[in-house]
Amino acid sequence: MTVSPVQRPLPHHDGSPLHVSEDVPALGDVVRLRLRVPTTWDPLVSVTVRSNPDREPVWDEAVLLGEAGGWQWWEATVTVHNPRHGYRWLLRQHDGAVRWLNQAGLHAGEVRDVDDFVLLATPPAPSWLAESVMYQIFPDRFARSAAADGRPTPDWAIPAAWEDPVDPVMPARTQQLYGGDLDGIVEKLDHLADLGVDLLYLTPIFPAASNHRYDAASFDHVDPLLGGDDAYVRLVQAAHARGMRVIGDLTTNHSGERHEWFQTALADAESPERTYYYFTEDEENGRSVSAEDPGYEAWLGVPSLPKFDWSSQELRHRFIQGRDSVVARWLLPPFEADGWRIDVANMTGRLRDVDLNAQVRQIMRRTMEEIDPDTVLLAESTNDATEDLQGDAWHGAMTYPAFTRPLWSWLSEPTGEPWTTAQDEQVVEPWFFGQPLGGIPRATAAEFAEAVTRFTAGIPWRIRLGNMQPLNTHDTARFATHAADGAMPLALGLAMTLPGVPVLFAGDEFGLTGADGETSRTPMPWGAEADPPVAERLSLCRRLVRLRRGHQVLARGGMRWLHTDDDAVVFLRESASETLLVVATMGDRIWESSREAVPGLVAEEGLGTDDVSRVFGEAQLKLGADRVRVSAPARTFTVWRLPGVPVPGEAAVMSSADAQEKSRFRS
Amino acid sequence: MTVSPVQRPLPHHDGSPLHVSEDVPALGDVVRLRLRVPTTWDPLVSVTVRSNPDREPVWDEAVLLGEAGGWQWWEATVTVHNPRHGYRWLLRQHDGAVRWLNQAGLHAGEVRDVDDFVLLATPPAPSWLAESVMYQIFPDRFARSAAADGRPTPDWAIPAAWEDPVDPVMPARTQQLYGGDLDGIVEKLDHLADLGVDLLYLTPIFPAASNHRYDAASFDHVDPLLGGDDAYVRLVQAAHARGMRVIGDLTTNHSGERHEWFQTALADAESPERTYYYFTEDEENGRSVSAEDPGYEAWLGVPSLPKFDWSSQELRHRFIQGRDSVVARWLLPPFEADGWRIDVANMTGRLRDVDLNAQVRQIMRRTMEEIDPDTVLLAESTNDATEDLQGDAWHGAMTYPAFTRPLWSWLSEPTGEPWTTAQDEQVVEPWFFGQPLGGIPRATAAEFAEAVTRFTAGIPWRIRLGNMQPLNTHDTARFATHAADGAMPLALGLAMTLPGVPVLFAGDEFGLTGADGETSRTPMPWGAEADPPVAERLSLCRRLVRLRRGHQVLARGGMRWLHTDDDAVVFLRESASETLLVVATMGDRIWESSREAVPGLVAEEGLGTDDVSRVFGEAQLKLGADRVRVSAPARTFTVWRLPGVPVPGEAAVMSSADAQEKSRFRS
Repeated sequence: MTVSPVQRPLPHHDGSPLHVSEDVPALGDVVRLRLRVPTTWDPLVSVTVRSNPDREPVWDEAVLLGEAGGWQWWEATVTVHNPRHGYRWLLRQHDGAVRWLNQAGLHAGEVRDVDDFVLLATPPAPSWLAESVMYQIFPDRFARSAAADGRPTPDWAIPAAWEDPVDPVMPARTQQLYGGDLDGIVEKLDHLADLGVDLLYLTPIFPAASNHRYDAASFDHVDPLLGGDDAYVRLVQAAHARGMRVIGDLTTNHSGERHEWFQTALADAESPERTYYYFTEDEENGRSVSAEDPGYEAWLGVPSLPKFDWSSQELRHRFIQGRDSVVARWLLPPFEADGWRIDVANMTGRLRDVDLNAQVRQIMRRTMEEIDPDTVLLAESTNDATEDLQGDAWHGAMTYPAFTRPLWSWLSEPTGEPWTTAQDEQVVEPWFFGQPLGGIPRATAAEFAEAVTRFTAGIPWRIRLGNMQPLNTHDTARFATHAADGAMPLALGLAMTLPGVPVLFAGDEFGLTGADGETSRTPMPWGAEADPPVAERLSLCRRLVRLRRGHQVLARGGMRWLHTDDDAVVFLRESASETLLVVATMGDRIWESSREAVPGLVAEEGLGTDDVSRVFGEAQLKLGADRVRVSAPARTFTVWRLPGVPVPGEAAVMSSADAQEKSRFRS
Repeated sequence: MTVSPVQRPLPHHDGSPLHVSEDVPALGDVVRLRLRVPTTWDPLVSVTVRSNPDREPVWDEAVLLGEAGGWQWWEATVTVHNPRHGYRWLLRQHDGAVRWLNQAGLHAGEVRDVDDFVLLATPPAPSWLAESVMYQIFPDRFARSAAADGRPTPDWAIPAAWEDPVDPVMPARTQQLYGGDLDGIVEKLDHLADLGVDLLYLTPIFPAASNHRYDAASFDHVDPLLGGDDAYVRLVQAAHARGMRVIGDLTTNHSGERHEWFQTALADAESPERTYYYFTEDEENGRSVSAEDPGYEAWLGVPSLPKFDWSSQELRHRFIQGRDSVVARWLLPPFEADGWRIDVANMTGRLRDVDLNAQVRQIMRRTMEEIDPDTVLLAESTNDATEDLQGDAWHGAMTYPAFTRPLWSWLSEPTGEPWTTAQDEQVVEPWFFGQPLGGIPRATAAEFAEAVTRFTAGIPWRIRLGNMQPLNTHDTARFATHAADGAMPLALGLAMTLPGVPVLFAGDEFGLTGADGETSRTPMPWGAEADPPVAERLSLCRRLVRLRRGHQVLARGGMRWLHTDDDAVVFLRESASETLLVVATMGDRIWESSREAVPGLVAEEGLGTDDVSRVFGEAQLKLGADRVRVSAPARTFTVWRLPGVPVPGEAAVMSSADAQEKSRFRS
C-alpha cells in the first residue's frame, strides 16, 4: 500500500455561512462575501468580486481580513441588484497571472456566466427542507391496512397478493394492484421513526387507472382505494405528531384520460375544461386526427395522458392559482400537507414554440407562499435541471446527473458486460436512466466528483441544498441490484453527507433490488427486519440517517473536495462550529502530509488527536507533531468530527460592519 | 527545430452544410445530421443523437453511410421540435465506454445542455451577413468634407483640427470635435472599395452632446453636423452603388438627457414620454432625490444617460414596433440602411427585478422582418453573450471573450509588466476590456483556441457565423498598440478565417495605435497611404480581406481544430467543394505525420502536391508518398487551399432520402 500526499488545497468559496453573510438577501441589501486562500499560496496582489448587475460587470475589491487556520481570509461587499445575482472571484498574482474562481472551480482563463456563484433575492425554501432526510413511498406497494381487504377491485386492476412477484410486462406492469393504502403507512410510522427519516414523499394518491396513479382521474379527492380523504388527514396528522412532514406528487404536465376535466372537455367542446388541453382539431390550422394523433397533445404521445395547455387562464385558476386551486387545497386544513413534488416538471407548459414553464412554476409557488410559505416545491427534472433551477420557484429538484448517475458509474459492480432485461417478453439492451448507453457507464471516484461539481456548478447554492439525492427512485432500477461489493456504505454515506436532501426509496433499507423502474416497486417485505442481511442494512441506514440529522453542518455547511483519485473521494463539510471530514474509498489508502498542507483542517496549533473524533466508519486518522496520516482500508466510508473552521479575530473581521450585520455570519 | 506529429483527430460535427442538411428548418421539419469518425478510431457499436424536445430527451439512432477520405460517416434524422432544438451525439464503443460530442468537444462523462449543438427554427440572418467583411466608422474621426467647414460649433464642443492629438482627459474626452461628416465618408469610398470591405458599421449619427453621440438628443433626424438626413441618403446610396451595405447604431438602453423625449418627460409629468423613463419619484415607494440620485434611472448612474423603461407600450410603439417606429424609419426609403447594431444590448430592458430584454429584442426583430427581412440586427454584449444569443432575435453580437480578448492574450507583446495609462491626469492601473486585471492576461495559442471554443460552445452555429470578430473597436485600445513583433498577420488572419464576421475598425489598416477607447479614436491619417509601414499594413489588410471574400468556405464552412500547442494553432475550414488549411504560429514548427493520421485532409489516394495550393503566407507543405510535412517559420500565417471534403457515394448517402432533401446538402 503506497503512502501518498493529499492534493494541494485551492482557494475556496461556497454559499455557506462561513463565506456569505446573508443567503436570503433582499434586493438592494449589502452582502459580505469571503474567500479563503491557503497561506501556502503565493501572496495575492488583489482579490475582487465580479458581479453582473443587469448583465454589465461591476467590480468590488476585497480586503484582507487576516489569517486563521492556515488560510488568508478576504472579504468583499456586494449590493444585491437582481433577484438572481451572479458573482465570481478574480485573484491577481504577483507574476501578472489571474485566476477566476466560480462554482466549477479555479480557472486560468476567462469563465462563462453560467457557473457563477449566485445570491438569490427570492423567497427561500423552508429551513427544514435542507435538514430533512426524505423517504419516498409508492403507496400501492408500501403497506396494506386491514381496511384494504374490504375494498372492491377497480375495473382496470389485476389484483395481486402481497407476496406475488412484480410483473413488469404490460398490462400487469401498470395494472397489477397490491392494495397498499394510507392507513397502512400510518401503521408503519414506527418503522420510519426508528429509521430516523422525517420527510415522507408519497407518489400520487389521486384516483387513477394504474398502480402508479400518474394518470390522475381527479385532483379533488384521494383515491378511495387508498382510504380516501379521511385517511390522508389521518396520515398527515400522525406524521406531524411524530415530527415528520408529508409532501404529495402532482402531475402538472398532463392528467389521465379518465380525468373528470378531460372527460368534460371531450363531452363538451364549449366547456371551460376544453381549454385545459391541446385539442388539435381546435387549432386554427386544424390537423387531421390519425391513428398516431388521438386528437390532442399527450405526454410523449401516449393517448392516456393528455397534456395540459397552460395558456388557459381557467386552468391556472382551477389548478395552481390562489386559495381555491388544487395546489392550495391539499396544503390547507384539513389536509395540511407540507408541499409538492411536481411530476414531469421539466416538460410542464412546454410544447413546440410555447414555453410557459416559468409562469406555471412561479404562479404555483406564489400560491404556496400566500397560503403557507412553510411548504416546499420540488421539481422532477431527471436530466440537466440547471436552466429551471435558478431560484424563481423550485426549491430543488429530483434530478439524477448531479449525484445519482455518477454514483452508479463509480460504485456499481465493475462488469464490462452490458446486462440485459426482459420487457414485453423481449430481451432489450439496457438503458441507463433513460439513456441508451448499453449498460452502466464506468467512472472513477475522481470522475464521480467531477460530475457532481459539473452538474451543481450552474445551480445556486441555496437550491443545491434542496436537491434530492437518491440512490434510486420508483422510476429507476435499485442501486443495490448492481452495487459493487462493499459499496453500499459509501453510496448511502455520500447521499447523507454531500450537500442536498438524502432520499431513501422505501425498501432501500431492506436491501431490495430491482432491475428497472417497475421491478423495483416491490411490496415491502415486512417481517424480514430481523433477518441478518436486512438487519445489517437497516442498522447501516439508521446510523447514517442519525449521522446526517445529528450534524447541522451536513445540512448547511460548506463543501470542499480535499482529495480525489481513481478509488477515493475525500471532502469536508465546514462551518464555524464544526467540521466533518469524509473519506469514501473503494481501495485501501494511506494519505500522509504535513499539517500545514491541509489548511483549516488540522493545522491549528495545539489541535491534538483528542480533538478529532470518528463518528462513523473504520478508517484511522493520526496526528503527529507535524504530520497528518489517514489510513483507510478498502471499501470504507468514514467520517470524523473536527473543530469548526477558525476565522480571523472578530474585531478584524467586523471592523467595517455594524452589529446587525455581524449577527448574520451564522454558523 | 523539433519535428512533431499533429494531434490525433477526433470525431467531428458542426453546424455547416457538410453535417446539417438544413440550417433554417421549420418546426416539424426532418433534418439529417452527420457525424464523422476517423477510420483510425476503434469501430463504434452505435452512434445516436440525443435531442431534448420540450426538455425531455429523445434518441435517434444513426446509420453508417460509408467511408470517405479517412472518415466513417454516420447519419441520423431528427424532427425539429422547438424553435431552439438542442442536440448532442452519443458514441458507444466496444469496451462499453461512451463518448458525448457537443459544441465544447468530446467528453467521457455526461454533459450539460448548455453546450448542445443547436438547430434554429427561427428566421435567419440575411445570407450576406456571414459573407461580409465589416468596417467600423466613428464618424467624427473618419473624414471631413468641405461642407463641414461652414458648420457652426455646437455649444458643448471643443473644436479640434484634424492633426490635433486626441485628448483623453475630460471634458475633451467627450467634447473634442474634429468635424468628420457623412459626405467625408462618401469621398473615401474608393479607399474602402480598394480595401475590399463591404459592410459599413457607423457608430451613432443622431444629434447629441458628445463626439461619440451615444447620448442621442433625437432619433428622428441625422445630426446636421454630419450633414443631416440628406447626407445619410447620399452615403447609403453611394455605398449600395458599390455593393457595400451600411448599418447604424441605436441606443435602446438609454437616450441622452438632451433627448427631445426626455426633455418632454421632464417638462410634463403627464406626457406619454414620461412613461419612457424610470422617474424614481413616480415610483410607488418614491425614493428621495439626492446628489447620487438624479431622480431617474440612468446608465451606470450617469445622469446624462437616462435609462428607458421598456414596460411602456408608448415607447415600444414609438421606438421599435411597427412601420412608424424609429427602428423601421431608417431602414425604409429614402434611407434604406441595412440594419442595426444595438448599443448596450446586454442591459436593455433590464433593471433589478425587471427583465424585458427578450421582449424588446424580439419586437425589434419582428419589426425588421415585417418591413425588410434583408436587414441585420446585432447586439453589443461585450462579455459572455451566450444567454441572449439563442436565435430568437439577434443575428450575432459585438462580443469580446469569444475572439478578441483571447487573441490579445496570445498575441500581445510578452511583457510581464502591467502598463499604465493616463486618465483624468492620474496614472491608473490598466484594465483589460473593462476588467481590472492589471494588464493583459497571458495565454498560449492552445489556451486561445480553448477560449474560442469555450465562448462559442453555447452559441448556435448559425448565430456564431454572425458574431463580430474585431481586433479592437472604438471602445477599446488598439491591438496594434501591444501586438507582439510579427503578430499582426496572425491576428488579422485569424479574424478573417475563423467563423464569424471579420471587423476592421477604421484606422486598423493604417496601423494606428491607441492605449484605450478614447485615444484609439484617432482621426484617419489620410495621405499616409504610401508611407512604407502604412503601405505594408494596407497591403496586408487588402490581401486578407480578399482571401476572406474569395472563399465561401470561410463564411459558411465547418471549422475543425487540427492541432494546437503553446505557440501555434492549426485548423481547417471545410466544405464539400473546398477546404482551407490555416496555420498561425509564433514559433517555428515542423509537423510531420502519416497521411492516414490526417483524415479528410490529405489522405485521399492520388492527392498530390499539385492539388494543394498556398493562397496566403510563407509556410511550406510537402506531400510524400505516405507522409505529410508542414514547415512553418516563426510568426507565420499561412493558408492552403485543398480539395473539398469527400463524402460517401451519393447513392449510399441518399438511399433513404428524396431528391428534395438531397438538394439540401449544400456545399
